[in-house]
Amino acid sequence: MGKRSDAFRPAARVAGQKQDVWTIINEAATNSPKQPIINMGQGFFGYNPPTFVTDAAKAALDRVDCNQYAPTKGRPRLKQAIATAYTPSTPHLSRPLNPTTEITITTGANEGMLSAFMAFIEPGDEVILFEPFFDQYIPNIVMAGGVVRYVALETPRNGSTQKTSSADWTLDVSKLKQAITPKTRMIVLNTPHNPIGKIFSETELRAIGDLCVDHSILLLSDEVYDRLPYVPFTPPRALSREIAQITLTVGSAGKNFYATGWRVGWLLGPAELIQHVSAAHTRICYSSVSPLQEACAVGFERAEELGFWEQSREEMRGKVRRFCDVLDELGLPYSEPEGGYFVLANLKKVELPGDYEWPEVIKGRPRDFKLAWWLIMEHGVAAIPPTEFYTEENQGVVEDWLRFAVCKDDEVLEGAKERLRGLKAFIKG
Amino acid sequence: MGKRSDAFRPAARVAGQKQDVWTIINEAATNSPKQPIINMGQGFFGYNPPTFVTDAAKAALDRVDCNQYAPTKGRPRLKQAIATAYTPSTPHLSRPLNPTTEITITTGANEGMLSAFMAFIEPGDEVILFEPFFDQYIPNIVMAGGVVRYVALETPRNGSTQKTSSADWTLDVSKLKQAITPKTRMIVLNTPHNPIGKIFSETELRAIGDLCVDHSILLLSDEVYDRLPYVPFTPPRALSREIAQITLTVGSAGKNFYATGWRVGWLLGPAELIQHVSAAHTRICYSSVSPLQEACAVGFERAEELGFWEQSREEMRGKVRRFCDVLDELGLPYSEPEGGYFVLANLKKVELPGDYEWPEVIKGRPRDFKLAWWLIMEHGVAAIPPTEFYTEENQGVVEDWLRFAVCKDDEVLEGAKERLRGLKAFIKG
Repeated sequence: MGKRSDAFRPAARVAGQKQDVWTIINEAATNSPKQPIINMGQGFFGYNPPTFVTDAAKAALDRVDCNQYAPTKGRPRLKQAIATAYTPSTPHLSRPLNPTTEITITTGANEGMLSAFMAFIEPGDEVILFEPFFDQYIPNIVMAGGVVRYVALETPRNGSTQKTSSADWTLDVSKLKQAITPKTRMIVLNTPHNPIGKIFSETELRAIGDLCVDHSILLLSDEVYDRLPYVPFTPPRALSREIAQITLTVGSAGKNFYATGWRVGWLLGPAELIQHVSAAHTRICYSSVSPLQEACAVGFERAEELGFWEQSREEMRGKVRRFCDVLDELGLPYSEPEGGYFVLANLKKVELPGDYEWPEVIKGRPRDFKLAWWLIMEHGVAAIPPTEFYTEENQGVVEDWLRFAVCKDDEVLEGAKERLRGLKAFIKG
Repeated sequence: MGKRSDAFRPAARVAGQKQDVWTIINEAATNSPKQPIINMGQGFFGYNPPTFVTDAAKAALDRVDCNQYAPTKGRPRLKQAIATAYTPSTPHLSRPLNPTTEITITTGANEGMLSAFMAFIEPGDEVILFEPFFDQYIPNIVMAGGVVRYVALETPRNGSTQKTSSADWTLDVSKLKQAITPKTRMIVLNTPHNPIGKIFSETELRAIGDLCVDHSILLLSDEVYDRLPYVPFTPPRALSREIAQITLTVGSAGKNFYATGWRVGWLLGPAELIQHVSAAHTRICYSSVSPLQEACAVGFERAEELGFWEQSREEMRGKVRRFCDVLDELGLPYSEPEGGYFVLANLKKVELPGDYEWPEVIKGRPRDFKLAWWLIMEHGVAAIPPTEFYTEENQGVVEDWLRFAVCKDDEVLEGAKERLRGLKAFIKG
């Protein structure tokens, strides 16, 4: 193609982004000599959704109404099923959630969060994120014209020498208070947390929620891993009526039903807030995928009676345990997750070869990118370097860690373990 | 819920929108005494996608990779199938379309257009739309900070007294020239056109395309009805190499395969432009629905050999004819579409009862809203008032018209015709 006038330059919101971690890791995985790579990088499932959900999807594909536009706010049956499922964890309402006004379906949790930012953030408004953060939040906030303020969680003491817990990543509330300004419109929370697996304690949540109430700040609570808690899980909306009134909760059928490619998510919260999220969603995607919404409705209707939630949680907890065994075996410390399907391992003890030739894309990056690259190229296992989830200033605190996704078949996990045993020769002391 | 601080006000981009036409018409249809309503309003199909496509969707639901995240730019198989299908209509490339760099999959055409606006429009940039326009374009442009400039197509002379054609809605190129300013970044085209069914002539397209080339303006060509042309259809990218280099084409599997609820669309164009659309899409939806992308890939691979495109076009042309018969019978003029599935009927001859009680939502609106309301409430047929597709200034030119969607089962069309025969008593002269 010929030379273009400057008129074809991209808008600032999409220009000049550096290569993201997913692209780097996926390309490394593709080009590694150790094929097939065992990919514990991205958090997609290595197995299918349960058949009671895929069967419902197939049935929906035979129904005319399920193949045509869903209502912009979502199919009524799915909204009803979600209302029923989440009413018990929304106790301060003292009545069932209203499926028509208090729930809106989005094209995955991702577009749901964008819809929330687009609904409330004016250019120059500030949004507080905790570090580490899920990286996709940032372009979404920037797209709405928002300015991100960061509050780093405290990292576990001795995380490089001994086994810790995701509960050891703690919130210093005074740091959060300092980050609040008159321009703060929203605090974004993620519990259970990606990548650290932390379930925020009631004490932490109450502190955050009360600050939001006191300063008229919205609380956007990303709870996409809500069905995978290994310790008691309380969502912020359950803490008080006042907190519930300023909280928007984000959920994901893709995470709940092992179907990240389905793009069915939702927000629930007070009608006064949800109406604006719906309005933004309508302007972004118009409506969301109709037949898979119907399938997810059936999923919610039947999950409890089939014992699916419990089975899902126990299976995933087993996978966490199964994977962590090899870390114990190697004497590599890790942060044991309280929820979700990510394990953060600390590889400070691993000595990278001094004469290793790093590619350009890795050279200027922190040590975790080197660890990830080397693991892919020399050992055939892909994991995610978590400095990507920090601002440059704070990346040092996680440069020895790697994030492993364990939502894979057990034999895949065993294969990964076998390969990781090869690290033994590189472990000091 | 209690009283909220002003901090919970919505962002300007979603606030204060008046009730849209779809909500008004759908609510009227729900509340009409003439149940069941025959809904020829919104352009969703009254029948299922072809079984070779739904069977492919069911098969995809059994595959692990099809249920997990698709690549952000779309599943390779779908991009390849689209590249193969659209290479013949992209002749100036002199080689096949490159599925990796020249095609990107989006969450329906709607989010595809938003991605294009987000990719190129900076706050204050101008976008030219032709009137009538598809109403969803406007919030999408506004969301990117763009300013819309309107150029009204000329309406058919004698459209209220005799049968006309969508070719009689013509472009006055001098008006387009006048609308171009140094801030113009994009012109949006829709061919075949909703709601008028116009297929822009090569002469018109060349004039538009050459203006774009001369002024370094991008041409965003919404061609979602491209498989339903009843006269020869040429997309702008086929006209010259220079025009192809500034043109982004928008397509929709939902429209092609009778599955508006599937949310699978795409953009194709020069790699230099598509990369930025992909970047915006990644930030908006991350990725699009994976199993239905796979089904649409099979759809494109098999449609030609099965004669599906031809059958689809002939069936829809038959539905247009079948519906227009009743307008001929009643002596109501209409604009015969050159493509797509909308018929614009002119109801100037219909006398509305002088003492009819209009609801508040209709009172301040042009005559077409009254016609639509009355038709729903008294005759049980829903159609769309097209003044919604005009700026207030120009609404007068279509206040006697209604848009009927004929993408419904033949028996539904026959039912609508039977009901519309009831208009006879209200037709003058």
